[in-house]
Amino acid sequence: MVGRYRDAVKEKLPTLKMRRRFWESVLQGPIADHVLAGREQLGEQALQTAIKDSRDEVVTSGEVYLVGGGPGDPELLTFKALRLMQQADIVFYDRLVSKQVLALVRKEADQVYVGKQRAWHSVRQEEINQLLVAEAKLGKRVLRLKGGDPFIFGRGGEEIASLAAEHIPFQVVPGVTAASGCASYAGIPLTHRDYSQSCIFVTGQIKEGELDLNWAALVQPRQTVVVYMGLRGLKILSQKLQQHGLDADTPAALIQQGTTEHQKVWVSTIADLPSLAQKEQPVAPTMVIIGEVVKLHKSLAWF
Amino acid sequence: MVGRYRDAVKEKLPTLKMRRRFWESVLQGPIADHVLAGREQLGEQALQTAIKDSRDEVVTSGEVYLVGGGPGDPELLTFKALRLMQQADIVFYDRLVSKQVLALVRKEADQVYVGKQRAWHSVRQEEINQLLVAEAKLGKRVLRLKGGDPFIFGRGGEEIASLAAEHIPFQVVPGVTAASGCASYAGIPLTHRDYSQSCIFVTGQIKEGELDLNWAALVQPRQTVVVYMGLRGLKILSQKLQQHGLDADTPAALIQQGTTEHQKVWVSTIADLPSLAQKEQPVAPTMVIIGEVVKLHKSLAWF
Repeated sequence: MVGRYRDAVKEKLPTLKMRRRFWESVLQGPIADHVLAGREQLGEQALQTAIKDSRDEVVTSGEVYLVGGGPGDPELLTFKALRLMQQADIVFYDRLVSKQVLALVRKEADQVYVGKQRAWHSVRQEEINQLLVAEAKLGKRVLRLKGGDPFIFGRGGEEIASLAAEHIPFQVVPGVTAASGCASYAGIPLTHRDYSQSCIFVTGQIKEGELDLNWAALVQPRQTVVVYMGLRGLKILSQKLQQHGLDADTPAALIQQGTTEHQKVWVSTIADLPSLAQKEQPVAPTMVIIGEVVKLHKSLAWF
Repeated sequence: MVGRYRDAVKEKLPTLKMRRRFWESVLQGPIADHVLAGREQLGEQALQTAIKDSRDEVVTSGEVYLVGGGPGDPELLTFKALRLMQQADIVFYDRLVSKQVLALVRKEADQVYVGKQRAWHSVRQEEINQLLVAEAKLGKRVLRLKGGDPFIFGRGGEEIASLAAEHIPFQVVPGVTAASGCASYAGIPLTHRDYSQSCIFVTGQIKEGELDLNWAALVQPRQTVVVYMGLRGLKILSQKLQQHGLDADTPAALIQQGTTEHQKVWVSTIADLPSLAQKEQPVAPTMVIIGEVVKLHKSLAWF
């Protein structure tokens, strides 16, 4: 089928680089999927549409892939994530991307670490936004690789806003967020008919010695609270939740480096979280899960 | 390396079936990953441990894989999900698993549809739990395939509880939950520094004509509310949120069949959701996202 359309593509896309990219997208995407699954006609129609819609401007302006790298276990990468990782000319990654995941980026791609330092978040974020724009404008395929899911505490929205403002094409690839990964590998369902009818995700990052959280929202009954990056603020978290009426005995778990070979799970109560952390000294990333569902860990742990 | 250990494995595992499973797990898992990544020594150590720990009881009792199939786009499957899908002897799947995802299950596996009917949920769930136990006890590798993530409104906790009670080995594979998938493909970040510092997931399923939701938790400022299965209860949802103090003009989006080629996104306000649905007639699965972040769809939509 490719042979039959080679001339049409050549006519539409004058340079070899453009045609290489075009055929890559055909052979690694839904068009090939159709054909391989025996839906030849659908595949051929899609190919005709792709040729008709192909333009050189996309190629010359580059593209940004905002990709969620999942919670740590490289087997929890999605196929789409890996496909785009294998097409990148340059990758910007941060602290929460696991080494094994990073190892799967195309070998020829330049690797740039933009791991955020807590103290100067805002400056750096602006810089990252500008770097993505600048590299895409050079015509590169830019991979922005994040741990977990880019739209859950990943600041992905800010990064693509600057791309959209500059009319740079982008794609967003969701990932298994750390809450899902840690919960599954720790045997703690986030929702459960008997214990929890909702789950809420917040971050526990400290700003000027305080946690900027809506405490009323966190002390509701029959819900599971998941705190991302909660390690440093654990003492404040424990105190404030109790002050706002959450029972001191509410079950709580710390999950260190969830889904990886270094995973550790400790179960306690919200009152005892600080002393638990003091004793066990968990390292980042550590997730906090709070709620009655935590009690299930004892019988459902499997990893 | 496999050659050097063939005899040791033969001695430990008497039947061909056991050995086939053992070597499958070696060649498709972390041991092979170590070796392929050049960490031969680590791989060899892991293989020795695996041989030492191998027992026939696991094989004879079967195993259950509780697997999240993601939000719809088959490219959003994880590698782990596909690997286990390819090993299954029998698969139990429900309504929210997309056809393309189901097509990737091992061809020889028996396929059993256990799509839940709304009205008789509780009976069926008990039946499903028992089916998983029964098939695993026959020594089968049982795939329980769910849409999205099994621990977020997937009732996965209940299914593995009955397995744990019967001492049947199981694994839980998280998936990209529908909230992440729909948000990413609709260009609506679930959290955003300027608009939302948390996100909360609930279901909009109607019970006896009512939505059993904690309305106080849903009308908090600076959070994103994601309602799974919210289509049928949309009118009640809209009314109740307003009655409990959420501004009638709060932005809200309906995302139909998110991440698939049939995806449609409509943006409105919580007050106008019912008339929007009346006019556009979205089909299930349709996700509702509520909050200021919905405003970003206009500039960040890309799919």
